[in-house]
Amino acid sequence: MWPFHTELASFASGKDSPSDFLESCIACIKEHEPEVGAFVHMDLDAAREAAARSSARWKDGKPLSKIDGMPVGIKDIVETIDMPTQMGSPLYQGWQSGRDAATVAALREAGAVIVGKTVTTEFAATFPGGTRNPWDKTRTPGGSSSGSAAAVAAGMLPAALGTQVVGSIIRPASFCGCVGFKPSVGAINRGGSHDAFSQSCDGVLAASLEDAWHFCWVIAQRAGGDPGYPGLAGPETCPNARQPLTLAVLETAGWELASASAKAAFEAVTEQLRDAGVAIVSASNNYVVEEVEREIDKARSITDRVNAWEARWPLNTYRSKNASGLSKIMLDRLALAESMRIEDYRRALIERSRARAGYAKLAGLADAAITLSATGAAPVGLASTGNPIFAVAGSMLGIPAISLPVMEDEGLPLGLQLMGFEQQDAPLFAIAVWMRDSLAERKV
Amino acid sequence: MWPFHTELASFASGKDSPSDFLESCIACIKEHEPEVGAFVHMDLDAAREAAARSSARWKDGKPLSKIDGMPVGIKDIVETIDMPTQMGSPLYQGWQSGRDAATVAALREAGAVIVGKTVTTEFAATFPGGTRNPWDKTRTPGGSSSGSAAAVAAGMLPAALGTQVVGSIIRPASFCGCVGFKPSVGAINRGGSHDAFSQSCDGVLAASLEDAWHFCWVIAQRAGGDPGYPGLAGPETCPNARQPLTLAVLETAGWELASASAKAAFEAVTEQLRDAGVAIVSASNNYVVEEVEREIDKARSITDRVNAWEARWPLNTYRSKNASGLSKIMLDRLALAESMRIEDYRRALIERSRARAGYAKLAGLADAAITLSATGAAPVGLASTGNPIFAVAGSMLGIPAISLPVMEDEGLPLGLQLMGFEQQDAPLFAIAVWMRDSLAERKV
Repeated sequence: MWPFHTELASFASGKDSPSDFLESCIACIKEHEPEVGAFVHMDLDAAREAAARSSARWKDGKPLSKIDGMPVGIKDIVETIDMPTQMGSPLYQGWQSGRDAATVAALREAGAVIVGKTVTTEFAATFPGGTRNPWDKTRTPGGSSSGSAAAVAAGMLPAALGTQVVGSIIRPASFCGCVGFKPSVGAINRGGSHDAFSQSCDGVLAASLEDAWHFCWVIAQRAGGDPGYPGLAGPETCPNARQPLTLAVLETAGWELASASAKAAFEAVTEQLRDAGVAIVSASNNYVVEEVEREIDKARSITDRVNAWEARWPLNTYRSKNASGLSKIMLDRLALAESMRIEDYRRALIERSRARAGYAKLAGLADAAITLSATGAAPVGLASTGNPIFAVAGSMLGIPAISLPVMEDEGLPLGLQLMGFEQQDAPLFAIAVWMRDSLAERKV
Repeated sequence: MWPFHTELASFASGKDSPSDFLESCIACIKEHEPEVGAFVHMDLDAAREAAARSSARWKDGKPLSKIDGMPVGIKDIVETIDMPTQMGSPLYQGWQSGRDAATVAALREAGAVIVGKTVTTEFAATFPGGTRNPWDKTRTPGGSSSGSAAAVAAGMLPAALGTQVVGSIIRPASFCGCVGFKPSVGAINRGGSHDAFSQSCDGVLAASLEDAWHFCWVIAQRAGGDPGYPGLAGPETCPNARQPLTLAVLETAGWELASASAKAAFEAVTEQLRDAGVAIVSASNNYVVEEVEREIDKARSITDRVNAWEARWPLNTYRSKNASGLSKIMLDRLALAESMRIEDYRRALIERSRARAGYAKLAGLADAAITLSATGAAPVGLASTGNPIFAVAGSMLGIPAISLPVMEDEGLPLGLQLMGFEQQDAPLFAIAVWMRDSLAERKV
């Protein structure tokens, strides 16, 4: 992996340039992309032109932002004016929307270099797109932001746009060993992103926490959050490290499915945090955490019902257009959705509100919560993108979540997940930075 | 105007059929459409086939809903799988989205007959689309749901889809003398409707309150509200009349711009309501209403700032595609948007929340509020769609609003506007039905 933020000083001094940085990314793409398959479309000529314009701005001492010149990928459910948006579906083969999504327009305004569109599962759900995990090509990179995670992990890009409604940022970040950031619900404008679920978020897969923060911050400043939301708030530069006083350990419904070695890795990290002076609370010693565990135990059930109802459209119109263009998984999902009545959905919304209110009580007690990002290392095989069970609670709660690549399982990456509080994304980054630095120091 | 709900018994008995109903609409279209210009696209063959299928269902005693067979129009910012969606903009000339919007898919599921796409202003904003007011062809029908209102008023359709973010349902309903219903914010799923503003709503222009209710109710049952919202709630059949105990009269910022004759017409209605035993409260005799007047006085300013920020995208990507395809009004609006910072938007959201909280206090005091729907009769000329000042408070507040065609100004229609409370659309209909019936009785 190859962070971008560490190069900013060299760009400013003229020692290095975004064009040089892009060429190194391209070299890495040429080497790894044939086997990894992270991209569904690329435009290297346009990228080189954008990088040259950025290099000129840096030379003039007038960069547009902290990501001016950053080579980025765009998950292929997000519209781009100059590239097709195909959503991992034959129904959208070659489709040109003729416009940029709000995020993409903002990235261009900030000087980012759009390298290409990254592979997604069918409509960002479960049917996989064929990308391989760069750490072990027999394994899945996770989904649905498969290509974004794999491209960053392989060093092809320092950051790429992802989206999450169940586990589509946190899980691939864990499997690929990169940083994953799913912001608070509504924090990033989803205009032109085809994921109109109430708990879906646009976010980022990145080579560093700094790149993740800068990427999302520049978008929010230029495009805002979803209409009606205040948008990601915080400082222009990634927040400084801040040691938490107290962290809540959450097992979530995932714990009983986690591998023994993943659990051991997580417990070792918890021990290191205790050694560093952080108080740890959990369901075993705190009744608020116990309550929260009970609420989030239903996260998958609530999420499945909410998403099913919200997916009736556009799946119903796609089916009437061309049913054979939908996978069996999608047709089954639509049939399930159509067996629901609006009252079922309203009940699920009420359960979700209750869980959110319950979780919010943690804020008086702990600076953040931690758990695993996945049940273990990326599973072997490309037919499934793995189990999202550890990520779904954060999605359902609408809170910010970060996957930090600080653990291992089976000699492969495993993410530590930090969960914060709604609209408090910046404080969570401050804790994540401290944790990354502190855990690195304490490693042998 | 020609309501549909009054025909249901005849369809059930076999005395009449949706095919016959459609032919009468088509006769009216042939007579008036050349001068009115309500449609931008029509498919009468497809409509006749849909009406024939509906007629067969009624004959079998198996109608799909209370709008099975209803000929409807779709505002042209809303996607249709079989017709272009052109948004009143040369940038979308001939554009085919290849899918139905959530509302359109739901209307088809309920058996509605899609006759065509109705004229909208450019991107549902202010640049007019050329439709004429059926009552006086030298006058505007209002905007932005211009074609939907004109088609209903001329008797071409019993109902048509509209949208409102400032005054785009209530104002044309007033100018054209039809029923306009702007539901609570989020009550109707806007998937595939190109109006992604935080206070925008899909709603309806209709020949009767019953048709308006049935139209929206069947959509909500099948497509729900916006993701995360419970969706329009209430009974399948339009609520029965209910006399309000107390109504609050709101002058709003519009009062000082209203014509003397419009004010006189409103005061006459208020007098009739008093005569019927309804208590009337206003700013002159009640401090809560006084507070509410103060809050909604800022409705236009808040709305303009919220909408400007939220329109940066997609206007910015349209401009980079082809600036000459945007009207000067739109380019100016984008320039204004780009002069805003995210902090300005956040401030406007806080002001809006405060106004909503202030208005909600009325609920303890009055069953609903009433005001004018417009400053007077439709103005002469087609260069402007008229002043939305009376409608903007309801949009900003996110509450349900109904325009009832029960008054006149200059011998032309003028709407009485009823404003309810968020998510309480059905109780507002019950009052509207009572008011319609009661005011009709009391007329000479």
